Amino acid sequence: MKTNRLEAFSDGVIAIIITIMVLEMKVPHGGDIAALKPVIPVWLSYVLSFVYLGIYWNNHHHTLFATERVTGSILWANLHLLFWLSLIPFTTGWMGENRFGPAPTALYGFVLLMAAIAYWVLQRRIIIAQGSQSLLRQAVGGDWKGKLSPLLYALAIPLAFVQHWVSLFLYVLVALLWLVPDRRIESVLRLRERD
Amino acid sequence: MKTNRLEAFSDGVIAIIITIMVLEMKVPHGGDIAALKPVIPVWLSYVLSFVYLGIYWNNHHHTLFATERVTGSILWANLHLLFWLSLIPFTTGWMGENRFGPAPTALYGFVLLMAAIAYWVLQRRIIIAQGSQSLLRQAVGGDWKGKLSPLLYALAIPLAFVQHWVSLFLYVLVALLWLVPDRRIESVLRLRERD
Amino acid sequence: MKTNRLEAFSDGVIAIIITIMVLEMKVPHGGDIAALKPVIPVWLSYVLSFVYLGIYWNNHHHTLFATERVTGSILWANLHLLFWLSLIPFTTGWMGENRFGPAPTALYGFVLLMAAIAYWVLQRRIIIAQGSQSLLRQAVGGDWKGKLSPLLYALAIPLAFVQHWVSLFLYVLVALLWLVPDRRIESVLRLRERD
Amino acid sequence: MKTNRLEAFSDGVIAIIITIMVLEMKVPHGGDIAALKPVIPVWLSYVLSFVYLGIYWNNHHHTLFATERVTGSILWANLHLLFWLSLIPFTTGWMGENRFGPAPTALYGFVLLMAAIAYWVLQRRIIIAQGSQSLLRQAVGGDWKGKLSPLLYALAIPLAFVQHWVSLFLYVLVALLWLVPDRRIESVLRLRERD
Repeated sequence: MKTNRLEAFSDGVIAIIITIMVLEMKVPHGGDIAALKPVIPVWLSYVLSFVYLGIYWNNHHHTLFATERVTGSILWANLHLLFWLSLIPFTTGWMGENRFGPAPTALYGFVLLMAAIAYWVLQRRIIIAQGSQSLLRQAVGGDWKGKLSPLLYALAIPLAFVQHWVSLFLYVLVALLWLVPDRRIESVLRLRERD
Repeated sequence: MKTNRLEAFSDGVIAIIITIMVLEMKVPHGGDIAALKPVIPVWLSYVLSFVYLGIYWNNHHHTLFATERVTGSILWANLHLLFWLSLIPFTTGWMGENRFGPAPTALYGFVLLMAAIAYWVLQRRIIIAQGSQSLLRQAVGGDWKGKLSPLLYALAIPLAFVQHWVSLFLYVLVALLWLVPDRRIESVLRLRERD
Repeated sequence: MKTNRLEAFSDGVIAIIITIMVLEMKVPHGGDIAALKPVIPVWLSYVLSFVYLGIYWNNHHHTLFATERVTGSILWANLHLLFWLSLIPFTTGWMGENRFGPAPTALYGFVLLMAAIAYWVLQRRIIIAQGSQSLLRQAVGGDWKGKLSPLLYALAIPLAFVQHWVSLFLYVLVALLWLVPDRRIESVLRLRERD
Repeated sequence: MKTNRLEAFSDGVIAIIITIMVLEMKVPHGGDIAALKPVIPVWLSYVLSFVYLGIYWNNHHHTLFATERVTGSILWANLHLLFWLSLIPFTTGWMGENRFGPAPTALYGFVLLMAAIAYWVLQRRIIIAQGSQSLLRQAVGGDWKGKLSPLLYALAIPLAFVQHWVSLFLYVLVALLWLVPDRRIESVLRLRERD
């Protein structure tokens, strides 16, 4: 199996997820500006999830770019990642509708945590399939972001029941960490090209 | 017609189906963890259907990979398969919302049965179009999974009215059978490459 | 502009339309088989529209296959066609929910008529862009199906208010006419290849 | 990163947005023609947004066609544009449901304004990445349309609270301005080819 079909399918699913979240934003019944007020928390949670999905799309591309061959276990690890990503509109909608209440904020973090673990599993599957000369292994390197993010999510989940604004702050913080584009893979690829 | 457009269209439809099922999961109104309880059966039925659609996507890819030319009858056999797959979110939603009650569980099996038949028809159309040297025919071989699955679905449909948990067990069993990736086609393709 | 991006975009839109119609099929509230009864007319109208969209997708592919260059007017003629096709889930849902009542049945035919006209405009734009040696013009030839279909739709629209089952019969008839795959374009393309 | 994956992803998102707007058009409950009356303003706002999204899709293609390499900042500028475009179904639905009332009409213009700014940012990012020999810079040239459109939107937003039909007229006017296909980029590309 070639990577390009896996890529196209994943892109399709991520594009649908990112757009479907808009549907969670139900059109308010009133026609004045005050009617927009309850939509604002939904909108803010939508912005956060949009950024997260954008980060996943971007990193996913870089990871697959460093992959030559798709095995059965890579394919299922990828579907597993898409499964957790596809739950993001649900948790986003629940969190936005309940104005970032404790339980929805914790569940939002739980799905982010599972997606992060699924991403790590996908990377491992690719590295194992590539063997000792793995291009992705060199590219990922120490992967401090990939290690720190699940820790911060795991911290944010119980914290949501104590002080949920702290959890939200952690989610925003992790997003900002990743927004800085992943130059590691790009630079390794560039080095290879030169050789 | 080239296979790649058929592939892209089918991938698009399957990606939409797999993602649209999330929309069946209506955001609960309460904001505490107890509000999630009625969502759990919906969520479990969603997981099962996600795995089924993943299996179809995977096998569909292998089948089309062994196809060189798309005829009109292959095209319509493919649309016929997509039709039954597109009903899966509906039956999944109905089954989840009624906590795996008899009638929804039977209908879920009926749509799986029709999809299995549609898949078998698609394979036959391709094999006939390829003639006696059919690459797909060699790859599929005895196809015991493709023969056993519809039998188990046909068994599960009436059983749903007697003991619907048995039917559900059969659906899970068939999914597990297929989760083991279809190495038959892969190995035949690999043999060809060597020659 | 190359045709492949136009093709990919159109495929995407048609794939979404075909799948979104499922969402019109609201999950019934009851859990027994009787609860499915009101869904049946919706389901039948869904089957009809699925076949129509499949026909459009198939013919659209053949038409674009005979197109080398996309001009601005071809691009907008294509978007115009997609616009009318994207209204099909709406008219399908209205017709199914009102058990094929007169007004919904007439509106269903009106959207089909506009789509047929849009398709004819698209073909004309391509033929004009290709000039006197137009490959598509030779392929389409007399195009009796393309001329008969809008006439039958135009007949079905007023008839819906007299005897709406006749209109439905006409819609099914036109679908059957087109289900026979369009061998004209295929054969002209094959002749070219031989030369 | 190659432009074709960015293009495919953007096409996917725009295709979904354009089709999802149909879902805003809820099927009316009555079965006669009078039941369609409240749908008409929704339908008209849908037509306007369809044309806008078609324009963005068209121009977006031309812009990326003149782009060789995708940097991280181009990728995020593109996601930023898609974010604002994905809000169009929401504002379209709100405007249509409130019969073009002042606040919804103003919000509709605000999202158009933000999308126009996002598009301008995307163009700047590409031009900067291409350096002094930027193909896109030559193609865009004076870009009077790109400069006039945000001005007209900015004018329409406060005007919506005074006389909202004037705002709507301005939105239609800008759409008409752009409907004339952007021949600038096409002609520069053609000149290059000749050299």
